[in-house]
Amino acid sequence: MSYGTQIANATPLLGIECALPHLATEASCGSIRAKTEEFVRQRQQSICQALQNMDDSPIIEEVWTSPDGCTEYTDRILRNGSVFQTIGVNVAVIHGTFTPETALAATGGALKVDHALPFYVASLSIVVHAQNPLVPSAHAHYRYFEAGDEKAPECWWFGGGADLTPNYLFDDDAAHFHRVHRDVCDRFDRSYYPRFKKWCDDYFLIVHRGERRGVGGIFFDNLTDHDADTLLEFSKQCADAFIPAYLPIVEKRCGLPFTAEQELWRQLRAGRYIEFNLLYERGTTFGLKAGGRASSILRGLPPQARWEYQQQPTSGSSEARMLEVLAHPREWA
Amino acid sequence: MSYGTQIANATPLLGIECALPHLATEASCGSIRAKTEEFVRQRQQSICQALQNMDDSPIIEEVWTSPDGCTEYTDRILRNGSVFQTIGVNVAVIHGTFTPETALAATGGALKVDHALPFYVASLSIVVHAQNPLVPSAHAHYRYFEAGDEKAPECWWFGGGADLTPNYLFDDDAAHFHRVHRDVCDRFDRSYYPRFKKWCDDYFLIVHRGERRGVGGIFFDNLTDHDADTLLEFSKQCADAFIPAYLPIVEKRCGLPFTAEQELWRQLRAGRYIEFNLLYERGTTFGLKAGGRASSILRGLPPQARWEYQQQPTSGSSEARMLEVLAHPREWA
Repeated sequence: MSYGTQIANATPLLGIECALPHLATEASCGSIRAKTEEFVRQRQQSICQALQNMDDSPIIEEVWTSPDGCTEYTDRILRNGSVFQTIGVNVAVIHGTFTPETALAATGGALKVDHALPFYVASLSIVVHAQNPLVPSAHAHYRYFEAGDEKAPECWWFGGGADLTPNYLFDDDAAHFHRVHRDVCDRFDRSYYPRFKKWCDDYFLIVHRGERRGVGGIFFDNLTDHDADTLLEFSKQCADAFIPAYLPIVEKRCGLPFTAEQELWRQLRAGRYIEFNLLYERGTTFGLKAGGRASSILRGLPPQARWEYQQQPTSGSSEARMLEVLAHPREWA
Repeated sequence: MSYGTQIANATPLLGIECALPHLATEASCGSIRAKTEEFVRQRQQSICQALQNMDDSPIIEEVWTSPDGCTEYTDRILRNGSVFQTIGVNVAVIHGTFTPETALAATGGALKVDHALPFYVASLSIVVHAQNPLVPSAHAHYRYFEAGDEKAPECWWFGGGADLTPNYLFDDDAAHFHRVHRDVCDRFDRSYYPRFKKWCDDYFLIVHRGERRGVGGIFFDNLTDHDADTLLEFSKQCADAFIPAYLPIVEKRCGLPFTAEQELWRQLRAGRYIEFNLLYERGTTFGLKAGGRASSILRGLPPQARWEYQQQPTSGSSEARMLEVLAHPREWA
């Protein structure tokens, strides 16, 4: 993969002046770690507020700290609301140790280690599934990783992205979601959107089905091609794009009538979503292998799913049109 | 793992006298390959017949051969029957090539290769999920593997086992299922049942949940501690134990009344079953990584599943009692 060379050439980040305590919340000390933690916590708050405004059920918060104090999850969760089936907007701050296996799972092979290596990650992850099967699911995640010693990490990188998973294709929705994210990308680097759009299509491939999880968006990982402050600012602006990219689609579709057959199709698509997340999704496979908290890591799974042997939609149906686009991604922006 | 040494010490099997054509069905030439193929096809037939006798819906057969002729799946499938939600009794015969990754997935680390290595496997796999949530699901699988050149394989081994996955615990059912399989084990090697019972408990651990998929049974892999004919005969007798171990349980429980809450619990347990299969189950992860046919490999997933954030059964409930046994396996036989 081309990004393997990026990480290999990454300049160690030397801008860490202060030793942060575990799970530091002091954002004032100026390091990228602290700035990232401030970013993910602020956006968790603002994104939850915007989603909460659309639903009668409360978003509840659950904070979990590992016994050794090295891992903290702050989960904000809504289940079975008036508009949303589930919302999970989670912050994780982890001081861990890469094994060769978890380094592979975390970076998709870009970072290979043959020994234990300390790592640090702060991440924001958003997953939304709506009650109406005509409303697409949406996902976004932004994270900052360091590997190696805290004072002089061997390497650091940003990862993130946002993607849309409809059960039924509305071209306008896919185009809107892509354009909002393209506009953010274009403000930073004109090469970003084309690269990250393709990366997203490649990453969200359910390999054994030959189809994507959804209609994509942007995806990037092991990103080090600008200085850390610039990439942090890019991550912030991407995260700020989530609500304007997604909520107008929810508003437009959530009142549409739907049939029992459409609900059934949604559940079959949810099965595919689960296959992707458990078999291929880096955050999930890495998190579970690294001994993370299962209920936090798996909170993004759709709440109901079905599997049928050899189910194939009728040729020419809306469902077949959806599959066609999942098999052959289009340009949307 | 202790079985790592077994495979390392395995004597190459020299008893292959004839070069079989791809997907050989001639059972007469006397090799273990042909005998195994005969075994898995015969038991597919007899086990399907016994299951079919209990259900009004037909078991249908679908044969799929890969374009290169190297992989053949014979799926026998029932969906949404009167007694069974799904039955999948599948035979796979595969002439493939191990990569380092698929060798790891296939053997759980017992076989490590740093180069491409031809392999052959013939397998029988049985998965049954019943309509009534008080009827446990059951699974069994038996397979013969060779790695290396067909004329003088570098190593060969048998794998297999049978296990029971109740949603609600009936002690009698677990004890019966274990005893029938213990009796087969004891006829071959008194060490087998204790070893394979523990191996099953260890193997079916959903690591990130700290609970087993079910109440176990027997599991073995990379088995080479008797000659191949003896181990083939052992596999046959294990496969023959499936129906007497499982059908009396189905008969006893399938008419019991059940509640909507019990159905809901079953779907949550089905979610755990899916987590295990997609994250840890060797046949699934190996099959998908090796480019196997997804619909055949995943035909054993429960057809309906749910996920709830942080769902915990009430203390002292039947559901809590089930979880207790999944967290702390018992002796049943």
